[in-house]
Amino acid sequence: MYKKIDKNDIDFLIKVCGKEEVIVGEDISEDFSHDELGGVEKYPEVLVYANSTEQVSEIMKYSYEKNIPVTPRGQGTGLVGAAVAINGGIMLNLSKMNKILELDEENLTLTVEPGVLLMTIGQYVQEKDLFYPPDPGEKSATIAGNINTNAGGMRAVKYGVTRDYVRGLEVVLPTGEIINVGGKVVKNSSGYSIKDLIVGSEGTLGIVTKAILKLLPLPKKDISLLVPFPNLTQAIETVPKIIKSKSIPTAIEFMERDVILAAEEFLGKKFPDNTSDAYLLLKFDGNSKEEIEKEYENVAHLCLDNDAYDVFISDTQERNESIWSARGAFLEAIKASTTEIDECDVVVPRDKVAEFIRYTHDLQKELNVRIKSFGHAGDGNLHVYTLRDEMDAETWELKLKQSFDCMYKKSRELRGQVSGEHGIGYAKKEYLHESQNEPYMNLIKNIKVAFDPKNILNPGKIY
Amino acid sequence: MYKKIDKNDIDFLIKVCGKEEVIVGEDISEDFSHDELGGVEKYPEVLVYANSTEQVSEIMKYSYEKNIPVTPRGQGTGLVGAAVAINGGIMLNLSKMNKILELDEENLTLTVEPGVLLMTIGQYVQEKDLFYPPDPGEKSATIAGNINTNAGGMRAVKYGVTRDYVRGLEVVLPTGEIINVGGKVVKNSSGYSIKDLIVGSEGTLGIVTKAILKLLPLPKKDISLLVPFPNLTQAIETVPKIIKSKSIPTAIEFMERDVILAAEEFLGKKFPDNTSDAYLLLKFDGNSKEEIEKEYENVAHLCLDNDAYDVFISDTQERNESIWSARGAFLEAIKASTTEIDECDVVVPRDKVAEFIRYTHDLQKELNVRIKSFGHAGDGNLHVYTLRDEMDAETWELKLKQSFDCMYKKSRELRGQVSGEHGIGYAKKEYLHESQNEPYMNLIKNIKVAFDPKNILNPGKIY
Repeated sequence: MYKKIDKNDIDFLIKVCGKEEVIVGEDISEDFSHDELGGVEKYPEVLVYANSTEQVSEIMKYSYEKNIPVTPRGQGTGLVGAAVAINGGIMLNLSKMNKILELDEENLTLTVEPGVLLMTIGQYVQEKDLFYPPDPGEKSATIAGNINTNAGGMRAVKYGVTRDYVRGLEVVLPTGEIINVGGKVVKNSSGYSIKDLIVGSEGTLGIVTKAILKLLPLPKKDISLLVPFPNLTQAIETVPKIIKSKSIPTAIEFMERDVILAAEEFLGKKFPDNTSDAYLLLKFDGNSKEEIEKEYENVAHLCLDNDAYDVFISDTQERNESIWSARGAFLEAIKASTTEIDECDVVVPRDKVAEFIRYTHDLQKELNVRIKSFGHAGDGNLHVYTLRDEMDAETWELKLKQSFDCMYKKSRELRGQVSGEHGIGYAKKEYLHESQNEPYMNLIKNIKVAFDPKNILNPGKIY
Repeated sequence: MYKKIDKNDIDFLIKVCGKEEVIVGEDISEDFSHDELGGVEKYPEVLVYANSTEQVSEIMKYSYEKNIPVTPRGQGTGLVGAAVAINGGIMLNLSKMNKILELDEENLTLTVEPGVLLMTIGQYVQEKDLFYPPDPGEKSATIAGNINTNAGGMRAVKYGVTRDYVRGLEVVLPTGEIINVGGKVVKNSSGYSIKDLIVGSEGTLGIVTKAILKLLPLPKKDISLLVPFPNLTQAIETVPKIIKSKSIPTAIEFMERDVILAAEEFLGKKFPDNTSDAYLLLKFDGNSKEEIEKEYENVAHLCLDNDAYDVFISDTQERNESIWSARGAFLEAIKASTTEIDECDVVVPRDKVAEFIRYTHDLQKELNVRIKSFGHAGDGNLHVYTLRDEMDAETWELKLKQSFDCMYKKSRELRGQVSGEHGIGYAKKEYLHESQNEPYMNLIKNIKVAFDPKNILNPGKIY
């Protein structure tokens, strides 16, 4: 159905981008055959590095005319196979478009190219006493990757998700046409919000070639609380009470003892405490120590009233970093503790988190498979991992399917959604389909057709 | 092109909704031939009150099959003709679906029917010590009207706009099919954000029949500052400095002396001060007097350093209400001061507000027409009114067109957008078209077709 890449196509790409930016056949590194998810592997026919919006536009125009599939790619840190060229064709790598274009201190906006890394943005704005709040664990992702999955991260409780910090986008459409949506303006009710449709569309509707991000003034101080509880249910059931208490934490994470132990082993460093079964980890930020103290004292008492064993307060930069770097290493630690993993990134209403996690505990025993989890208790977004350990390929496929079928079914019962922040991509399509009715899935298809009638941009993803 | 309503259609509507809910011909009140905008007038052929999602669905299925245009209607408080039945057909009035369905105190959500009034929501949640932040001036609008225009209001500086508080929607599609988007979950990356496409779509993509809103804990205290400046430029140029100062006000409004005088006359009440040419009006909220004091003292000094004459602090409920009710009456006061008005609701980057307002001052003189404005200095959303006064119809049409052409052109130059919060509707289509390129407008059209291939739902609006 799609045109295969031939010499004329390669010549065209070299003409547009230069010889050194076009990589073909066996010269393509194995890295580009997959993302961070195991099991979905496919090489593109050609890998091209774009260096400007015009190059992206020319490549899309050509591909649209010739019917060649194009898979946009950033750092390949995704977890659902969204940046894998499952139909071959062109992989369009945007990671070299990585310049910070403008800091506008009057409007508090930062204009960036798509390949700028999240960690680069964080450092750059912090030096100017400014703040880009979205804080996913994977700091080496590109900003366009974050935009395309509507990445959430740990500060979502107080500050919201990536969508809330995207003010404007420059987008190359599948036809190669260029549009600008939004801008530096704070409000906008001027026609359908195409910006919000592009955010979270996993590179299937258009290619983000520039983004205008909203910044905030940098809070002057932060303090973290590590709160041990007798069990996970008691820990998690405290969360809605915290949210209602008028003290709004920046982050509320939950973690269980075995994940902490795995992180200690992985990092070769001790966590401040590992003696309890379950923990909440909270962060508070603000502009003065007194302001934050009032907030966290309130919450500390609330935790103790709800059977917390203790409240460890961490108010030095050093201790904070050690706690949060351990939290940031959970995924890698779980990965390192087994042979292969796959992830269920459901989001459920905040008051259903405990029920869902209890369900996964029972499921481990029922299916005789290890299931580990941690996540964002404050916003109901869970990261639940099924571990392969020593299973053979066939058993693994079966157990993985069984565990995922059960977990997504449970999430639907609890009125949750398939993905809180990692997207649908290639790997979670089946579960999106099961979670929505036919009119809904038809709309998804119709919207895709509205942008990409020939289905050449990142085909086979989402629907 | 569209089918005209006949006796069979009326009989069908009576069968679905009951005789008393179906109003035909001369029994339709003049109110339903227009919204709050003058100049766009047309009666529907039949007015129907729906009382359930199922009724809405049945009417849409029938209309889709028969090719009858349907205009959804709430309280008709819009300012761009979006709820006027410009093609006749059925006006589907949702104002009787006005029940609050559920307050979920664990997840801090409120589930409501579309016809609940904004003021009802505000009062209801306040009694439970909770807070629905969006705060447009028109409190008698329905929540579905607010959702369909992505209404902003005065608290957008700190709290964002309606979009940020819509967690989930039940929507009847033009075909009569029913979908649910989002839910009580806080994060969501599960396919294209259809929820965000419906928000701000002015009733052209689907009919909102239920909404799940996000609530916050109610801040315990608020304080307002009224700050007189020598002139508007100095007032407005202080705003970006306030935003950067780490003290985040809930609201930053600007106003000029002549608008204050008009409001005093309209309300028959004195404003705390009317001796200066220009004012900023700020609000701060928080959970303690000390916390707020620290914030506002900082900002008060900043204003005085930037040539403010004085800072009037209002910390009693009574004084706050008198100031903000005067602010809330500006639109009515301007209306009462002339024969007819039309409004330009542009939003420009925050640092361009002063330039835009200076431009409208010059334009008054150039065109010899009165132009009055006030608005949200904190988010760049301006409400600028051209006044008819004693002009004859022909002169008014000409002057209005001239002034609007100039103002929208100026807004485009400043990289603003056509509408900050009132939408495009019927009246501003031309200016949306001028502000966007052809690929963008094609997308708008394609998205409409994706939802409504027969173009029967609120046709002739937005594009």
